[in-house]
Amino acid sequence: MKEQMLPAKGKLGILLPGLGAVASTMIAGVIATRKGLSKPVGSLTQTGHIELGEGKGDRFPLIKDFVPLASLEDVVFGGWDIYEDNVYEAASHAKVLDQHLLDALKPELETIRPMKAVFDRDYVRNLDGKFIKQSANKWDAAQELIRDIETFKKENKVSRVVIVWTGSTEKYLEASAVHESIAAFEAGLKNNDPAIAPSMVYAYAAVSQGIPFINGAPNLTTDIPAIVQLANKTKTPIGGKDFKTGQTLMKTIVAPGLAARSLGVTGWYSTNILGNRDGLVLDDEQNFKTKEVSKLGVLEDILRPDLHPDLYGDLYHKIRINYYPPHGDNKESWDNIDIFGWLNYQMQIKINFLCRDSILAAPLVLDLALFADLAQRAGMYGVQDWLSFYLKSPQTQEGVPAENDIFKQLNTLKEVLRNMMKEDEPEFNTVKHIRAAEQVIG
Amino acid sequence: MKEQMLPAKGKLGILLPGLGAVASTMIAGVIATRKGLSKPVGSLTQTGHIELGEGKGDRFPLIKDFVPLASLEDVVFGGWDIYEDNVYEAASHAKVLDQHLLDALKPELETIRPMKAVFDRDYVRNLDGKFIKQSANKWDAAQELIRDIETFKKENKVSRVVIVWTGSTEKYLEASAVHESIAAFEAGLKNNDPAIAPSMVYAYAAVSQGIPFINGAPNLTTDIPAIVQLANKTKTPIGGKDFKTGQTLMKTIVAPGLAARSLGVTGWYSTNILGNRDGLVLDDEQNFKTKEVSKLGVLEDILRPDLHPDLYGDLYHKIRINYYPPHGDNKESWDNIDIFGWLNYQMQIKINFLCRDSILAAPLVLDLALFADLAQRAGMYGVQDWLSFYLKSPQTQEGVPAENDIFKQLNTLKEVLRNMMKEDEPEFNTVKHIRAAEQVIG
Amino acid sequence: MKEQMLPAKGKLGILLPGLGAVASTMIAGVIATRKGLSKPVGSLTQTGHIELGEGKGDRFPLIKDFVPLASLEDVVFGGWDIYEDNVYEAASHAKVLDQHLLDALKPELETIRPMKAVFDRDYVRNLDGKFIKQSANKWDAAQELIRDIETFKKENKVSRVVIVWTGSTEKYLEASAVHESIAAFEAGLKNNDPAIAPSMVYAYAAVSQGIPFINGAPNLTTDIPAIVQLANKTKTPIGGKDFKTGQTLMKTIVAPGLAARSLGVTGWYSTNILGNRDGLVLDDEQNFKTKEVSKLGVLEDILRPDLHPDLYGDLYHKIRINYYPPHGDNKESWDNIDIFGWLNYQMQIKINFLCRDSILAAPLVLDLALFADLAQRAGMYGVQDWLSFYLKSPQTQEGVPAENDIFKQLNTLKEVLRNMMKEDEPEFNTVKHIRAAEQVIG
Amino acid sequence: MKEQMLPAKGKLGILLPGLGAVASTMIAGVIATRKGLSKPVGSLTQTGHIELGEGKGDRFPLIKDFVPLASLEDVVFGGWDIYEDNVYEAASHAKVLDQHLLDALKPELETIRPMKAVFDRDYVRNLDGKFIKQSANKWDAAQELIRDIETFKKENKVSRVVIVWTGSTEKYLEASAVHESIAAFEAGLKNNDPAIAPSMVYAYAAVSQGIPFINGAPNLTTDIPAIVQLANKTKTPIGGKDFKTGQTLMKTIVAPGLAARSLGVTGWYSTNILGNRDGLVLDDEQNFKTKEVSKLGVLEDILRPDLHPDLYGDLYHKIRINYYPPHGDNKESWDNIDIFGWLNYQMQIKINFLCRDSILAAPLVLDLALFADLAQRAGMYGVQDWLSFYLKSPQTQEGVPAENDIFKQLNTLKEVLRNMMKEDEPEFNTVKHIRAAEQVIG
Repeated sequence: MKEQMLPAKGKLGILLPGLGAVASTMIAGVIATRKGLSKPVGSLTQTGHIELGEGKGDRFPLIKDFVPLASLEDVVFGGWDIYEDNVYEAASHAKVLDQHLLDALKPELETIRPMKAVFDRDYVRNLDGKFIKQSANKWDAAQELIRDIETFKKENKVSRVVIVWTGSTEKYLEASAVHESIAAFEAGLKNNDPAIAPSMVYAYAAVSQGIPFINGAPNLTTDIPAIVQLANKTKTPIGGKDFKTGQTLMKTIVAPGLAARSLGVTGWYSTNILGNRDGLVLDDEQNFKTKEVSKLGVLEDILRPDLHPDLYGDLYHKIRINYYPPHGDNKESWDNIDIFGWLNYQMQIKINFLCRDSILAAPLVLDLALFADLAQRAGMYGVQDWLSFYLKSPQTQEGVPAENDIFKQLNTLKEVLRNMMKEDEPEFNTVKHIRAAEQVIG
Repeated sequence: MKEQMLPAKGKLGILLPGLGAVASTMIAGVIATRKGLSKPVGSLTQTGHIELGEGKGDRFPLIKDFVPLASLEDVVFGGWDIYEDNVYEAASHAKVLDQHLLDALKPELETIRPMKAVFDRDYVRNLDGKFIKQSANKWDAAQELIRDIETFKKENKVSRVVIVWTGSTEKYLEASAVHESIAAFEAGLKNNDPAIAPSMVYAYAAVSQGIPFINGAPNLTTDIPAIVQLANKTKTPIGGKDFKTGQTLMKTIVAPGLAARSLGVTGWYSTNILGNRDGLVLDDEQNFKTKEVSKLGVLEDILRPDLHPDLYGDLYHKIRINYYPPHGDNKESWDNIDIFGWLNYQMQIKINFLCRDSILAAPLVLDLALFADLAQRAGMYGVQDWLSFYLKSPQTQEGVPAENDIFKQLNTLKEVLRNMMKEDEPEFNTVKHIRAAEQVIG
Repeated sequence: MKEQMLPAKGKLGILLPGLGAVASTMIAGVIATRKGLSKPVGSLTQTGHIELGEGKGDRFPLIKDFVPLASLEDVVFGGWDIYEDNVYEAASHAKVLDQHLLDALKPELETIRPMKAVFDRDYVRNLDGKFIKQSANKWDAAQELIRDIETFKKENKVSRVVIVWTGSTEKYLEASAVHESIAAFEAGLKNNDPAIAPSMVYAYAAVSQGIPFINGAPNLTTDIPAIVQLANKTKTPIGGKDFKTGQTLMKTIVAPGLAARSLGVTGWYSTNILGNRDGLVLDDEQNFKTKEVSKLGVLEDILRPDLHPDLYGDLYHKIRINYYPPHGDNKESWDNIDIFGWLNYQMQIKINFLCRDSILAAPLVLDLALFADLAQRAGMYGVQDWLSFYLKSPQTQEGVPAENDIFKQLNTLKEVLRNMMKEDEPEFNTVKHIRAAEQVIG
Repeated sequence: MKEQMLPAKGKLGILLPGLGAVASTMIAGVIATRKGLSKPVGSLTQTGHIELGEGKGDRFPLIKDFVPLASLEDVVFGGWDIYEDNVYEAASHAKVLDQHLLDALKPELETIRPMKAVFDRDYVRNLDGKFIKQSANKWDAAQELIRDIETFKKENKVSRVVIVWTGSTEKYLEASAVHESIAAFEAGLKNNDPAIAPSMVYAYAAVSQGIPFINGAPNLTTDIPAIVQLANKTKTPIGGKDFKTGQTLMKTIVAPGLAARSLGVTGWYSTNILGNRDGLVLDDEQNFKTKEVSKLGVLEDILRPDLHPDLYGDLYHKIRINYYPPHGDNKESWDNIDIFGWLNYQMQIKINFLCRDSILAAPLVLDLALFADLAQRAGMYGVQDWLSFYLKSPQTQEGVPAENDIFKQLNTLKEVLRNMMKEDEPEFNTVKHIRAAEQVIG
């Protein structure tokens, strides 16, 4: 694959539908890093190493030195929003970052201004922005987005573009006939089918032009046959859904550990308090349902109650999200996990995660953008399920079950990178331990 | 290796130095399982599956159906203790299990009576049992243990024996000259060298007779050159140290997750409250030091501050254990983890684990005994570092760094089992995902 | 008042509408105490002391030695339920108490059998018991209850009866015209007015006969003018609403402490998980609303945002209850309290209360029954707001604001007891300190 | 008493031995308040109301409008320290307050410069400041402090001075012969008796000159007969010990609540993590012991195991403080409380208090200074135990037991203020409830 890989020449445009807390935090961080004011902590592409060759420590380069990622120096930002604030203003309102830091980045941030959004309040009842395209129908809206992208490319002289959805969670939708084929979908765009949410219009616009599109919210968006078919047709990488941060991140860390030790689980109660715009959106029942479905699935795949009915057959899983303004972006989760061990004796684990929503999400946006661009240059297209490491509810290629165990997800991601660069799987301690055992056995 | 594997014929004796809370809980559980009163939850050998062949779900047998482990029906128990209580009495005093369950198992439990222990209060100041061998010196003590084992084998008609140390933590010792060779060690036994702790006398007795010995406490015990050399000479499997339960179990689950996501860690404060005999022993500073050293090491290996100085270079790790009688065996840990993400913004994780010490440890004793016996029948000997999955401070073969990441430990364990049975590594989703990507790439 | 007090002669019948977890736990505990199997922990009437005379320690008798309460030896139990289970069966199903204890009390418990309940599923949607009176209308239902009480008194030879509502929370109702007067209410009973909930029928039946009635659920029940007027007319003590246990108990302990120290509060998030019948009932939105209203009020009264707008003017208070079957009766609450201090710096308090619903409620039922009987013998009638110590949402006499600070509530309760017995308020340390100061000042 | 009260004329000097985190935070806050940049949250003297007259709401003035306290406008600050930093520098190093706020206050803060401290590292092993008086002996040191105070008064034109000890915890000392009388103490000063700690030298210097002295650390300091006798002789108010903040504050809020409800307590485990200079000092075993003794006492007085042996007779109370640099001044406590209720069923409460040491302590320093000055003007002298509201281990007048229940402490404080101003105790709801009951009874 190495020979096919196109180099990261020229500038990479990262376009973000939704220039709110997450997007502005990511952009501010990249600029702060470029200026030497900060480190890109939490970003695997910028700080992570990869094991190569004959074992741990032998060769362990930074990922960004191993695969030809776009450099942070070459990245340009743009996007759409339903509020007219520039990124400096948006970041200031979001109150995620210290105002003194934002002030130091003001010259760069205030030049990034949103384009008018494709938006319909019917899908996100608790928001009411006014900076919205007045298109005749969804088809026209898609065409306007395509023109927006073209304009952005020209004005910023970028050679490549990727799009990462950083907008709000839309109300719950299920895949239906209009999503089944490209033709049906395009007809639906033209007759304003209500089953086509705004995020799908963005996805269509991007993928129809061969622009990689990753979905960071739990909406269907790219997870419908029409967009998958289009991606295969235009040879475009797509991926989703829902950035894995906070509580679900912790859940997909802890659950594999319980499973490893054959400890049973009878109940898992998860509550969240959150006071930012995301919390406000999820305070609406229909939008919460989209999120709930995304969050509920992870335990089943990891614990496999089908294989371990005695351990996980009776698991009661409950998730709640509460809008709680005093915390702003400082999302906080509390989990109570009821487990049992030897002789069915019960034990409990309580996890209180005082996290920051946008701080956790920002580096994921960056990594997903850079990896989506890399995939495209490597000739990969369709659903990029090797990026499920970043996602709460991974969209997979047909017939492939989703993997939610974060450690298996990371192994997959690294294995794909090694395959890209024609590197064999390394021999770790594992192998050394096995060898040592075998030598002895003779 | 398959052809070399000796079958699990006849009875297996499991001998336990220390018939206290952990040992009696394990024994009671095995008997309850045999009687159909309970399930062996928490035991990988009894409830775990192993992935084989062409991927998840294709072949996924129970481990105990895949490798020829001794059956629970064929296991016989014995041991030594400094108190004369039989196992029914010991379990009743330990107050780990419901008295009504113990009463149902009384006929079986009360027939298991300890042999007199090799013990010296100088190594465990807070205990004062009187059921102790009065040997002329440590060499004689070892010989008496060897005779004990022989007697046990005859009386119980067992074909094989393994020993798992379930005794208390001894005071802190460092390896010194007397531990450097078999000859020096045997001389030390004869002249009562204070650097030879009682647990080493047991280890010597076992390994000199080709009996596998696993150490569940943080003492040096088998982790000295003399015992390693002896194990290689007598072709005996050995392993240690310190059952990984409770707080350290949770730590080696969570830390790999933070590392996976490139999240920085500035501090990790761990406190424990515990009211059983183990807690009492650790209330003495010298014994706590042994435990502390065992517990402190795990983060370094997992987080690799050498590779990620920006993320883990300043990590402050503090561990406390407090004797707290109101909780009895219901050990409880509270961890505060100070992490940082994007732009160095700080977040916190608090984990409160309301666990049960002996409930978590019991299945580990069983698994380690069964795997040590399996290893011996497979012709494996020396340090069995593939069992580090169960251990807080894994002893490794020379030159092989310890692995503390519980997920890598489990992979190693399963890989060794597959190798034993000449099974190739399976293709998981990972591989399917890669294949899918490659097909597309062509 | 001492001379007017009637002695506690003869037996006291405690009748309980709702013989479920709380009622059966209370009954079992009283019988276990009578048999010397247990102590009545959590009951102020049985274990509490009262300060008298010239200061702390001078005179400090047990409350039950100070006021002429009915003795536990003289108490007889009965009640109504929508399930036909006797109290032994009900307690066994509730899984609150150890089955071995229940078996020891079986002879006494199984003789206590419910009478058929007045019930209408329209008020409690998630329950579906069948042991229900088929009355022509609510008036007839009340008459049947009156006959039930008469029968109970005769059969059990009791001299006095009190009723404590231990039934479920009913759906949310607001006081309306039919509740405004005795006449309107009696007309409503006859024409089956939907604003008259079953608990009101019980209250009417009791109060019309001069039988004290205390309401342990958040329903209106006695908190309507009709019942208050009737209580004054028949000279009957009444009280309510909603036993103060668990989270609200903790809240009315902690909030006065924050107020004492002039610490500001910006947010208070309270969540509960609960798996018993109470949790099931509250899983219905209409029933939860009744509970929510009861729980929300307590902070306002304690913190007085009207007087301290800078400290409490922006307090965001959110309460959630989640049905969570794995925990059964082991209710658990988690509170996050956002406070601020000097220079508005923010701090947080997290309280995790692993409580037991019925264990906390049971002694309150007993105390309220005994105090209601005492009040009646002391000639007190109407709303007994001095019992607000036990209640989440105290019903008060007209024009008297509710007091929710548990420490002020306790002071009131003790002061009323002292007044009953013509004892002056004692001089405590407080007074000693003041005296000491004054002496010095001369 | 009203007529005797001297008015708050002229300036009040507040002198602080120890110009570290707590002192500088207090000073910065007072100046910020004067400038209108902040509110004095957490200060009872500045934000608290007092109930007067015929009941709640009738008259409820601010305390500072009710008693003639010194105004914040009239307060002048000074002090001593072992480091030469001015208060701006000290506050900057302490990292308690936002640097931007400190910069806004820099002109005022940097003019406050410490005087050289009386210090001996033998009493505080983990500190090593060099800005120390080189006195011939402790008597001379006291004389130098007296001259310092005189100089401060002249230079700042203050009419009155009070001293509040904001220095470190000294090593554990018990009262001995040298502390028994003024004469013995003065002899000890002259011959450098090691039982006289530096804080006692300050106390002696102050009290000998009639300057009120309050001790905010757990050292003996004023809690010895010599200083008490001297205070009575010079008619000077004194008080101590140990500011009640954080964990002990919470403990004296929650314990009265458990006692109110007759809930038993079997164990109370309290751990603290703290990374400021206070944490460093307490990392030394001898200094921790002083603190431990101060913290351990509070439960006994509140729960009264002598009166309730069944409930509190077996209480196991354990307190730990751990130096944990990652948290700096953000002290954090975690408490596990094991309680039991009806039928001895066990429950647990976990309290995690993420507090800020200096933020909680600063307003206490201010209040104690203002109240000590008020007491002096009211003619009160000797031990001011009515100020125990602020203190972890209240020093009391001879023969008066300490009161630790924060609600009783607050009642006492307010009662003393009312007595000062010749106001009768008000009639609260309590009384209204009683009246209402009595009216009915007739």
